Amino acid sequence: MAATQATYDELLDSWRKATLLGSVQNQLGWDEQTYLPPGGAAHRADQMSLLAGMVHQQLTAPRLGELISALETGDKPAGSNGVFEANVREARRRYDRLTKLPTRLVEELTRVTSLAQQNWVEARKKSNFAMFQPWLEKIVALKREEAAALGGSKGNGVPYDVLLDEYEPGGKTADVAKIFAALREALVPLVRAIANAKKRPDSSILTRRYPKAAQAEFATAAAAAIGFSFQDGRLDVSPHPFCSGNGPGDCRLTTRYDEHHFPCAFFGVLHEAGHGLYEQGLDRKAFGTPIGDAASLGIHESQSRMWENFVGRSAAFWKHFYAQAQKTFPEALGPVSRDEFYGSVNSVEPSFIRVEADEVTYNLHIMIRFELEQQLISGKLQPADVPAAWNDQYTQSLGITPANDAEGCLQDIHWSGGGLGYFPTYALGNMYAAQLFVTARKDLGDLDAQFAKGEFMPLRDWLREHVHRLGRQYLPGRLIEKITGKPLSHEPLVAHLKAKFEPLYGL
Amino acid sequence: MAATQATYDELLDSWRKATLLGSVQNQLGWDEQTYLPPGGAAHRADQMSLLAGMVHQQLTAPRLGELISALETGDKPAGSNGVFEANVREARRRYDRLTKLPTRLVEELTRVTSLAQQNWVEARKKSNFAMFQPWLEKIVALKREEAAALGGSKGNGVPYDVLLDEYEPGGKTADVAKIFAALREALVPLVRAIANAKKRPDSSILTRRYPKAAQAEFATAAAAAIGFSFQDGRLDVSPHPFCSGNGPGDCRLTTRYDEHHFPCAFFGVLHEAGHGLYEQGLDRKAFGTPIGDAASLGIHESQSRMWENFVGRSAAFWKHFYAQAQKTFPEALGPVSRDEFYGSVNSVEPSFIRVEADEVTYNLHIMIRFELEQQLISGKLQPADVPAAWNDQYTQSLGITPANDAEGCLQDIHWSGGGLGYFPTYALGNMYAAQLFVTARKDLGDLDAQFAKGEFMPLRDWLREHVHRLGRQYLPGRLIEKITGKPLSHEPLVAHLKAKFEPLYGL
Repeated sequence: MAATQATYDELLDSWRKATLLGSVQNQLGWDEQTYLPPGGAAHRADQMSLLAGMVHQQLTAPRLGELISALETGDKPAGSNGVFEANVREARRRYDRLTKLPTRLVEELTRVTSLAQQNWVEARKKSNFAMFQPWLEKIVALKREEAAALGGSKGNGVPYDVLLDEYEPGGKTADVAKIFAALREALVPLVRAIANAKKRPDSSILTRRYPKAAQAEFATAAAAAIGFSFQDGRLDVSPHPFCSGNGPGDCRLTTRYDEHHFPCAFFGVLHEAGHGLYEQGLDRKAFGTPIGDAASLGIHESQSRMWENFVGRSAAFWKHFYAQAQKTFPEALGPVSRDEFYGSVNSVEPSFIRVEADEVTYNLHIMIRFELEQQLISGKLQPADVPAAWNDQYTQSLGITPANDAEGCLQDIHWSGGGLGYFPTYALGNMYAAQLFVTARKDLGDLDAQFAKGEFMPLRDWLREHVHRLGRQYLPGRLIEKITGKPLSHEPLVAHLKAKFEPLYGL
Repeated sequence: MAATQATYDELLDSWRKATLLGSVQNQLGWDEQTYLPPGGAAHRADQMSLLAGMVHQQLTAPRLGELISALETGDKPAGSNGVFEANVREARRRYDRLTKLPTRLVEELTRVTSLAQQNWVEARKKSNFAMFQPWLEKIVALKREEAAALGGSKGNGVPYDVLLDEYEPGGKTADVAKIFAALREALVPLVRAIANAKKRPDSSILTRRYPKAAQAEFATAAAAAIGFSFQDGRLDVSPHPFCSGNGPGDCRLTTRYDEHHFPCAFFGVLHEAGHGLYEQGLDRKAFGTPIGDAASLGIHESQSRMWENFVGRSAAFWKHFYAQAQKTFPEALGPVSRDEFYGSVNSVEPSFIRVEADEVTYNLHIMIRFELEQQLISGKLQPADVPAAWNDQYTQSLGITPANDAEGCLQDIHWSGGGLGYFPTYALGNMYAAQLFVTARKDLGDLDAQFAKGEFMPLRDWLREHVHRLGRQYLPGRLIEKITGKPLSHEPLVAHLKAKFEPLYGL
């Protein structure tokens, strides 16, 4: 037992050190997106590559493998409460992923995706898929190789499973496909009904003039109100909004301000603050251990989408905040009633760009990408055929056809960065959020009444207790089941969307 | 010869890697002073300590010592132009300093100075030297130990020499004492004459209202005009202004804005931009090699003081900039003539606080600290007696007596951080600047005429060519002699001050 403890301690110590070094990389990444002078890019790349190499070396040290094996086969310490097992499980997952990939493949992926991202920026600017096609071909080939190296092609292995598993541990392609199909079946008629509805909110309210400084002030106040700590974090500007959890007490959000588009910054900040609350709610004592991190990208997204949509776009939220909004933006909102405003922030309209999509159609964008990715990885779809397949899918699912590749298959950064398997986590996040929200409502009583009074701490603290502080102790599917008492289902999300949008559109 | 080249390459490669990692530490240090959320301080300390340990380990690796020794005793490569020798010399200096100090002493110094700095902040706030005294005692004892470990007490060794050498390589206490005495002899009568002068500029102009945003815009324009590249750098706000050269293409300045004190930000930015020009002018190809860095703190200070005082406080500079200043600050400067303004930014007045001192009295502040530091290190002065000795010196040199320790011996951060030996570099910097400026004027012709037309690139490029790009290739004393044809003298500074201040004060 003492031997187990010593082995365990050594594992955790090494892991903490590597994570601490990784958190430095994170900090430099944040700086790169916010304050790095343009001329410093090459030097920053050198710093990042040095750190990446060092972290990789530390996490693939043969000694770590020995420690993990010893812990897997040795006695379990008494009273571990599952933390010990979870740490060993997560250490194994990470160690295996890192050591199973040949160095040559890792280096080639790094090199190709770095070049591909630059190329994608150009290709998107010119709306020219042909420019990007050879890079997508290389990337798909490398990701198939990666899937094979990780065992996704052996026996009954599904190559896409192991790619998905990177972002959503334990996630299975077949399960995702099944739940997506069920969700789609409910969404398509809802989208159609909304499209044909007579009653329509006036979304032009949102494109009036909203001075940037006032937006920053208002969004900051809202983020603070939902419990994001600015003592332990900050909000800056970057071209692509993100949340960076740099370590205990240091979580940084970014946004961008568009003077003529209110939702961009405001809901963007609520979204990133939702991620930020997760980071700020992680158990500080577990920082640097294998389970010290968020459970998965899907669970992370559930937090951002919950605060953005379930809270931030609710009627109750605006009962509390609308007077302040009118005071902050008298020119734009002076003559607008609260109900009109609530309608406008919940406009539903099939559109081409995923990141601008509304709560109802968003998931259809995800399903299209999930479908195409599977076909790319299985070889059923050739990269050259992506634009046609993409446009077909949009026509079928959303009833609209992209006029060009920039508003079609070139819109997302993910593929150019090698992030195949990432997209499903967005829609999973929406479903996780809905299911968690039902349980929160059961546990906390009338959430709407609380929001209307500006009381957001009960929900934040409930999430902290049930989700945040646990880190990666449970696989995401198990975590949801543990909290809500049921496996993940599409039903809570569908119920939420119907309850909200049917009255809004007079259905 | 091939063997020498391989050894040399290995040394430079290792050095580059350690420097690159050190530059990450630098970046985190910048962030700590600018954007780090308060709650992230402990995590940041963990990151810094991890990186410091790794850099230290890399730079004290026995293999490095072997490489340096081999290069010292082996053949010199043909056509090294002195770069090879300088790299070996600087590697030896750094390696010896790092390896001669026992780990216990390094750790104790880190621990004590970290606590002492917190303590000093409190002691200064309360103007209570007794609170800080035990820490100063510990620090002086540790610095004496450090000096002994570095050989400063052996044979004819002067302990203060090895402390000075940390900041001003090759600097000797006796030489500094001699040149300071000569400078003092010229300064004291000048200060006295100015104090008794009938003609006095109106410095109250500078405490009118200068809106912060306008200050930022004006200072940024001035920094850009003297050649600081904002493509390769930036300007932010921090409580204590500094310049951080994070690596090629990434040099960051900070300042602070006081709405009712114009010089603070404006001359502060010119000062830091002077440092920044040095960093931006270093040879990029030499980055990470032992000579890739600035020559010394004194040479660094010569650059900042030259742009701040010799350029920024010159009549010619304001010939170019004053119209813009009046346009930027109409309320404060509308009714002020250029001559009045020029006088106001050159007010001379004995004062207690070094960082606010004018060009003439500044060096006397430095000499006081140099004197007291030597006595502390030699044991002639006990820390308990510092306040009395400090106040005596101010009375003698500047004719004013501090009313309390906050405006007396507690004003500077240096001692609490263990930086004994640092102060002399400030006054050396002023003398270096004056002597370099004389040569620049000889080489470049009528600098005043150039400044009056807003032409600052000739001077910047001259400094780049003669100072910046050389890095640490020459020891500072040798560098000055090489450029100006003479060893460092106090005379050019005295001549500059007399030529400028005698007419201003009607002497």
